[in-house]
Amino acid sequence: MSEILAHYLIETPHELEKAISVIAGEQSSGTFVAVPGETPELTARHRAKIVTIEPLGFVETPSLPGAKLSKNEGSPIYRQARFTLSFPFENMGANLPTLFATVAGNLFELSDHSGLKLLDLDLPQEFADAYLGPQFGIEGTRKLSGVFGRPLIGTIVKPSVGLTPRATALLVKELCEAGIDFIKDDELMADSPHSPFSERVSAVMQVINDHAEKTGKKPMFAFNLTDDLEKMMRHHDTVLEAGGTCVMISLNSVGFPAADFLRRRSQLPIHGHRNGWGMFTRHPMLGIGFGAYQKLWRTIGVDHLHVNGLRNKFWEPDESVLASVSALRTPLHGGRFAMPVLSSGQTVHQPQDTFAKTGTVDVMYLAGGGVMAHPHGPGAGITALREAWEAATSGIPLETYAETHPELKAALGKYKA
Amino acid sequence: MSEILAHYLIETPHELEKAISVIAGEQSSGTFVAVPGETPELTARHRAKIVTIEPLGFVETPSLPGAKLSKNEGSPIYRQARFTLSFPFENMGANLPTLFATVAGNLFELSDHSGLKLLDLDLPQEFADAYLGPQFGIEGTRKLSGVFGRPLIGTIVKPSVGLTPRATALLVKELCEAGIDFIKDDELMADSPHSPFSERVSAVMQVINDHAEKTGKKPMFAFNLTDDLEKMMRHHDTVLEAGGTCVMISLNSVGFPAADFLRRRSQLPIHGHRNGWGMFTRHPMLGIGFGAYQKLWRTIGVDHLHVNGLRNKFWEPDESVLASVSALRTPLHGGRFAMPVLSSGQTVHQPQDTFAKTGTVDVMYLAGGGVMAHPHGPGAGITALREAWEAATSGIPLETYAETHPELKAALGKYKA
Repeated sequence: MSEILAHYLIETPHELEKAISVIAGEQSSGTFVAVPGETPELTARHRAKIVTIEPLGFVETPSLPGAKLSKNEGSPIYRQARFTLSFPFENMGANLPTLFATVAGNLFELSDHSGLKLLDLDLPQEFADAYLGPQFGIEGTRKLSGVFGRPLIGTIVKPSVGLTPRATALLVKELCEAGIDFIKDDELMADSPHSPFSERVSAVMQVINDHAEKTGKKPMFAFNLTDDLEKMMRHHDTVLEAGGTCVMISLNSVGFPAADFLRRRSQLPIHGHRNGWGMFTRHPMLGIGFGAYQKLWRTIGVDHLHVNGLRNKFWEPDESVLASVSALRTPLHGGRFAMPVLSSGQTVHQPQDTFAKTGTVDVMYLAGGGVMAHPHGPGAGITALREAWEAATSGIPLETYAETHPELKAALGKYKA
Repeated sequence: MSEILAHYLIETPHELEKAISVIAGEQSSGTFVAVPGETPELTARHRAKIVTIEPLGFVETPSLPGAKLSKNEGSPIYRQARFTLSFPFENMGANLPTLFATVAGNLFELSDHSGLKLLDLDLPQEFADAYLGPQFGIEGTRKLSGVFGRPLIGTIVKPSVGLTPRATALLVKELCEAGIDFIKDDELMADSPHSPFSERVSAVMQVINDHAEKTGKKPMFAFNLTDDLEKMMRHHDTVLEAGGTCVMISLNSVGFPAADFLRRRSQLPIHGHRNGWGMFTRHPMLGIGFGAYQKLWRTIGVDHLHVNGLRNKFWEPDESVLASVSALRTPLHGGRFAMPVLSSGQTVHQPQDTFAKTGTVDVMYLAGGGVMAHPHGPGAGITALREAWEAATSGIPLETYAETHPELKAALGKYKA
């Protein structure tokens, strides 16, 4: 019978097996007291099973408040462990929102632990059959943007908030002329009184379509359509009709069913922004790891997924960023690849070790200041980023490559390593 | 001009005003470097403003990893404070998902703090105009269930997972005969291979409709329709057509746009289950407080909202539960009341202080073991809970009232205080 494997990190003052059994019971057929309908047959068929428990050590201070102690546990230690539960597929069927309620629901509230994090998930084929997965993914994104064999170099419209459609279009014109591959709305900007969605699409796409006609290169613009569902669908059509090639959603604001609804009707790649993600993952003993998170969104079918970048300006350490890229490059049900989006404080200094440590150019590489603040302007900024990736993929030291590439040389002088 | 006030808790190794300014900038018109379009006019119009900062003290160990220090901050202290930001309504318009990306987005990832929690929100009238709010609320729920002047006594179908539609219907029959007011699906049970949604509705509603015809009392059953959007809408219609009076969704699995889509079309009260909520709120310095959370869901229009109960079996302390009830009883844009749902380890022992501390009977009071494990059966269990509330509201000590109420007396003997 098909099963869902859910991999967790736990911290508990109790015996590991006891605390983990409570979680397995609460999230499947068991309850805290025996009830009449809980027959041995039902339990055998529906109870979540403990697959493995891997003890990791202990701490003396609980990571989270609220773990309740038994009377004989006066000064406890808090044991940490990884463990895996197997949930029968039959318990929820191919219902991704209810899967989420099962593997990431009430269990965070249980007083049997002082820390719980869902690290990863293994979903059975039934979920791949029920959900569409990415429609465009890496290949489709490359075809639409005409960029092959190297990362898409991109940027985010800044200021994030406040530009009129006309001012946005002027900035996009400058970026197009500078040779950009990809531009996105900020997640703070969707359909606001000072930049109504359809006016922005109209102004921006006129610039992009003109540029494409003149040069044959059509930069991809991800329009942020995060909104109520009907508006999202209308805005998708607006982008499509204007010749746009990408839409963006704030995943945690939109949620699974609305994203799935969009995916089933979308004719454009979906750029998945994970703002709010810090709330799920920043604490090491609470929430959800990217391993689980990205599988849910790839199952539904997001085409691009943000992962931060090396030495980013946010809190996230490099090993976490690299693990995220690696997770996205691991096939899910034989494929379903979403393109990793590297961003946050990226300049000419990160491509070298980003490529060395990930081994791929199938990424978007977004820079704000790293493009706009180049001493010779954004065009030189984009060229310098492309050159930094050329040096990285050719195995040529950055300084050596810079000797024959003036834009890269100027960038090395401007941006601190 | 309309504004959104967002109230936060922060912990930071930096000067409070400096760290809070970074958040205000990042989440509105500013960026970490000055960009060409960032004119003084744009900044004046769109930048989030710091309204208040209330220092709270400091700790020596950071609550979250990843706060980055300047070179001169060798052994820092981590200052804690409450603060309020004002965001111009113009920045996002009446777009609740993008509001969420603004007040609960990238800011959790900033390395300028070692802890950030969104505590509360004040939304301008524009949000009340754009979103429908609860359709039934407390009054509508009372009318549909025929229960007035006291809490709705309810329970959850257990085992959570594994019962067939027929077995569920048999349990519902027993509960109806026992005089229950409200029953709900478990959040783990929606539309599964062993209990297909429409079969369960059909079996359960036959029992409930028969019971209503015979007795005039129609218990409310909240059918969990958490699923992909089209299925949710189809299932809503199935419940309505079968004469059902309530639907339930797992809020964090469904998300804002899908819940709003349902609300705009629903002809039934929406029972809002907050499973997964522990992930948002259990850490004192990360995530979202119920104050903010419940306003977002009341703005969209959930009719019932879970809050745990006093001395619950989960991690949540009583003061947090009471603050949640109080938040739900505070008018939002003049009303928009959602009924608080008290549950988790509730028995005859909590009504007395629940009523004393909340001053209201406008709640659902759900008990599992507190109903089913009564020594004289579930009928006596329900009677005993009702009597415990009668004693509470009449100001009669529980033991005194039990002297003339045998079901309550038996319950007092069974359940530990």
